[in-house]
Amino acid sequence: MTTLDDLPLRDELRGMSPYGAPQLDVAVRLNTNENSYPVPDAAVEEMEKALSAVLRDLNRYPDRDAVALRTDLAAYLGHALTWKHVWAANGSNEIQQQLLQTFAGPGRTALGFTPSYSMHPLLAAGTGTAWVDGRRAGDYTLSAEHVVAKIREYDPDLVFLCSPNNPTGTALPLDVVEAAAEAARGMVIVDEAYAEFARPGTVFALSLVERFPRLVVTRTMSKAFALAGGRLGYLAADPAVVDAVQLVRLPYHLSAMTQAVARAALAHTDALLSTVDAVKEQRDRIVATLRGWGLPVADSDANFVLFGAPREDSKGVWQALLDRGVLIRDVGLPGWLRVTAGTPEETTAFLNALEELL
Amino acid sequence: MTTLDDLPLRDELRGMSPYGAPQLDVAVRLNTNENSYPVPDAAVEEMEKALSAVLRDLNRYPDRDAVALRTDLAAYLGHALTWKHVWAANGSNEIQQQLLQTFAGPGRTALGFTPSYSMHPLLAAGTGTAWVDGRRAGDYTLSAEHVVAKIREYDPDLVFLCSPNNPTGTALPLDVVEAAAEAARGMVIVDEAYAEFARPGTVFALSLVERFPRLVVTRTMSKAFALAGGRLGYLAADPAVVDAVQLVRLPYHLSAMTQAVARAALAHTDALLSTVDAVKEQRDRIVATLRGWGLPVADSDANFVLFGAPREDSKGVWQALLDRGVLIRDVGLPGWLRVTAGTPEETTAFLNALEELL
Repeated sequence: MTTLDDLPLRDELRGMSPYGAPQLDVAVRLNTNENSYPVPDAAVEEMEKALSAVLRDLNRYPDRDAVALRTDLAAYLGHALTWKHVWAANGSNEIQQQLLQTFAGPGRTALGFTPSYSMHPLLAAGTGTAWVDGRRAGDYTLSAEHVVAKIREYDPDLVFLCSPNNPTGTALPLDVVEAAAEAARGMVIVDEAYAEFARPGTVFALSLVERFPRLVVTRTMSKAFALAGGRLGYLAADPAVVDAVQLVRLPYHLSAMTQAVARAALAHTDALLSTVDAVKEQRDRIVATLRGWGLPVADSDANFVLFGAPREDSKGVWQALLDRGVLIRDVGLPGWLRVTAGTPEETTAFLNALEELL
Repeated sequence: MTTLDDLPLRDELRGMSPYGAPQLDVAVRLNTNENSYPVPDAAVEEMEKALSAVLRDLNRYPDRDAVALRTDLAAYLGHALTWKHVWAANGSNEIQQQLLQTFAGPGRTALGFTPSYSMHPLLAAGTGTAWVDGRRAGDYTLSAEHVVAKIREYDPDLVFLCSPNNPTGTALPLDVVEAAAEAARGMVIVDEAYAEFARPGTVFALSLVERFPRLVVTRTMSKAFALAGGRLGYLAADPAVVDAVQLVRLPYHLSAMTQAVARAALAHTDALLSTVDAVKEQRDRIVATLRGWGLPVADSDANFVLFGAPREDSKGVWQALLDRGVLIRDVGLPGWLRVTAGTPEETTAFLNALEELL
């Protein structure tokens, strides 16, 4: 039998494992920051109509430029953005991969600040981009001074920021993004996958797009829009950035179904985003409860909470919760675990299971 | 206003244009080798049902491994292949990009034989892979001797073959593929996007997968299955190749809709492939008619025909046809043009327009 060792893999892939949380069949799945609420009936009906309108013509390629979808996304974002400021792909992973192919890649360097979204270094590796880690402070915060110092130290071609940061959950103060955009010679990517869950008063980097042509905000419909299975990520940036990404995007990368479903979802923005408040309530409940138990908990602007495990052996805690039918995420930070805020029932199941382990 | 010149693009992207044929609103579109026949009603109904079954749960990520779809694709391919031999993505472009990321990339070399599918060198560039061109003979054929000689000359990490070849239309004799697989130290990719349109007696590389663990066949549902808008490409190879590609694939790259629609299409394989014979009839009609007019025409095993333009100025012929409402493809080979075989009416419109230019 042929094995990986028999194939002429790239050297840096040898010994690696595929990225991805276990897809286990468990009653309470709080491990991938999905939105626990199904798509509301009204949105489902609109999606069905939109799909029926495209299925017969699937023999034709989709609109390669996805202009109608980009127009709807721009309208959703506001900030006087137009479709020319927006680009969409199959998840924000593909968006970020395209940005790396365009502005980083072989012989170039990307800087990130871990712990952060673990796909960023993997996307760098997959595009031949050197990765340097500026690291966060011991309490996982990130200051403007630190970001600027690391940009000066490494002179990266591309900087990844993440706000709210995954897996810690806390949004970046806008001055950190601003300082990065001012200091960096290259591109600054702000991954705002969880933006819609932020606490009141949070200001997002969209407001900076007009000022900084090398600043790119990436977003997704997977989380607040409850569309993880629909695969729609997007970016907002100067139109020149969107033009640049065209040079590496795969032609017709976005299916007619994806374009239709995403547009139907955007037409029901209010209904879909109505789950956001419910999720935030459970998130705040988790934060308050765990703090009440004396556990360390990071401030969360996302639909998940990073908390200090009640025992030193955080892997053991993860397993003990799974044994109780609750799947959360071991994000590889010793002593810490991440839990998605789901429905009230899911949250109760998680809190009850954790309480047993105290 | 910011322009591309103001952005820190990769040097090799400067001055490039995005890949893609013009998407023009013309009555007769025979430029992108789409299947001119819409999806049959029975298949549309099955797709609608399959989609309705997944829409409510789009809040959850799709099956990351797309096992059910891969099982159906393997059953379609036959040759005793299982889902472990098959991998699927958003079009065969994404499949080939993943193969380049896994087995080629920075510091490695891919060999192709132009004229061939023009995305192959672009995918190489997008993944930082050096590209070497082994070229075809003056009559665009490719012999085993030539392929082996170029493999020995360049010692590539990855070889692209294309059968039936786009844009010339002719399938490769199996001994050419066999010789490449025997001679190459690296991977051999056989792009069989148009396989289902081949003339009787053509033998495809699927039959070689078991013998050569470094041989990969890529296919698509865009053409024979009339699913260009659905974006479903796939590969068949040794299971170790499928395992290897997992190291670079984006997690959850294939939406729940794409998986559902592709499976519904595969459940109606007979109905969808019934258009193939009709298309082949028009293709053979184009070949015979143009040869009757004394034009040079390549043998075609695909749903398109490459022919020598009736005037030296092939760009002028392309424009004159467009002026007559018929959009075909200028593939950048001076003196040659490519036309897709469509419905009988579309073929008649093309032939009539071309006849006026003789």
